[in-house]
Amino acid sequence: MASIKVHGSVISNAVMRACASLYEKELEFEFVPVDLKAGQHKTEAFLSLNPFGQVPAFEDGDLKLFESRAITQYIAHSYAEKGNQLISHEPKKMAIISVWMEVEAHQFYPAAQSLTWELAIKPLLGMETDGAVVEENEPKLGKVLDVYETRLAQSKYLAGDCFTLADLHHLPNVEYLMGTQSKKLFDARPHVSAWCADILARPAWSKVVAMKNSA
Amino acid sequence: MASIKVHGSVISNAVMRACASLYEKELEFEFVPVDLKAGQHKTEAFLSLNPFGQVPAFEDGDLKLFESRAITQYIAHSYAEKGNQLISHEPKKMAIISVWMEVEAHQFYPAAQSLTWELAIKPLLGMETDGAVVEENEPKLGKVLDVYETRLAQSKYLAGDCFTLADLHHLPNVEYLMGTQSKKLFDARPHVSAWCADILARPAWSKVVAMKNSA
Ligand SMILES: N[C@@H](CCC(=O)N[C@@H](CS)C(=O)NCC(=O)O)C(=O)O
Ligand SMILES: N[C@@H](CCC(=O)N[C@@H](CS)C(=O)NCC(=O)O)C(=O)O
Repeated sequence: MASIKVHGSVISNAVMRACASLYEKELEFEFVPVDLKAGQHKTEAFLSLNPFGQVPAFEDGDLKLFESRAITQYIAHSYAEKGNQLISHEPKKMAIISVWMEVEAHQFYPAAQSLTWELAIKPLLGMETDGAVVEENEPKLGKVLDVYETRLAQSKYLAGDCFTLADLHHLPNVEYLMGTQSKKLFDARPHVSAWCADILARPAWSKVVAMKNSA
Repeated sequence: MASIKVHGSVISNAVMRACASLYEKELEFEFVPVDLKAGQHKTEAFLSLNPFGQVPAFEDGDLKLFESRAITQYIAHSYAEKGNQLISHEPKKMAIISVWMEVEAHQFYPAAQSLTWELAIKPLLGMETDGAVVEENEPKLGKVLDVYETRLAQSKYLAGDCFTLADLHHLPNVEYLMGTQSKKLFDARPHVSAWCADILARPAWSKVVAMKNSA
């Protein structure tokens, strides 16, 4: 009987992010499927878990959370002694991890998510890609990856020598974009490319991909 | 001699966010003006502080940070014993604060920032407001504020009974939007409106506004 529950759809980026942190921490959890096509995320029952009507929603005993990056942070901090360390207890090191988590959220994600939606998710849902959105966002993502290239030439991971939540938060978009034309943006930058290969190969991430492929 | 330095422009949203946390913590700091009009944020000297070429950049002794929300979190955690408490050391309470910090970043900010840019910053810079962007984002912000209205009917602040970083992160956009037509979105929701009045009246925030007005 797992006390941890993730409510979501396995093809959702944000759900994959939350699950990745649970697998890194080797925590048992129950996955509760939410049928997005049927609009189950807009029902009263689901809105009581996340008032914004988005997946994932998360429970750990009587604690209810939403927003994928809040979930990963809770897991990393509350189960610090389990599985792989994803944060630091040293304030200055934690500050650097925070910087790169914010970079993911405010620099990488807006462009990467637009491209993921247009090039990976829309085709999955039988919708048509908007070429103008792709043309606008590829150069934006390229500029962000230029900064990453310089950073990753200096340190193996974004926040230093160790894999942390800052890297983990990128995984869902990187996974999706590797199956699209935007893969070229990563391939063109050798340190970025090596970093992607490294983080995509993590055993915890393989478990997320297996979940997604079983859908 | 303050060892804490904030590099930025006082009209910048993100700079105001960082300064608000310093004033809440009653920390001395040196403000180092960056001339955005002259492109000083794209010089090599500034890029060594923030490779994305945006303000703020932050120093505390030999620690260099950027991204406003990473700066506020560092300040709140590292100077926990100073000034007003902005976080919690109890993991479940901290998780709820994280949820509402993520809500600010991913639900509130995209719409609020588009409106701030169009209705407050562009006029300041002598640029023309794009009405279509305003029309698209006002209903989006309205939907987010509907969730806030329900939340703030149950608790005085977003994360519970106490003011935290989750509230603080909203201040710059709330401040700017109160001087625009989008004020109506806040005014129409009584709990949101009371929350805005409360957080805008904080002494630390008055100091940020005084800095901004002195520009
Ligand atoms: N910032 C949220 C984003 C969640 C999100 O966008 N979820 C999508 C699936 S990836 C969703 O539920 N979409 C349905 C909707 O917004 O109606 C998080 O990180 O959890
Ligand atoms: N996510 C960043 C955003 C910083 C940001 O957008 N700064 C703006 C001023 S509010 C800036 O420097 N703009 C100039 C530019 O992007 O070139 C943060 O929170 O610090």
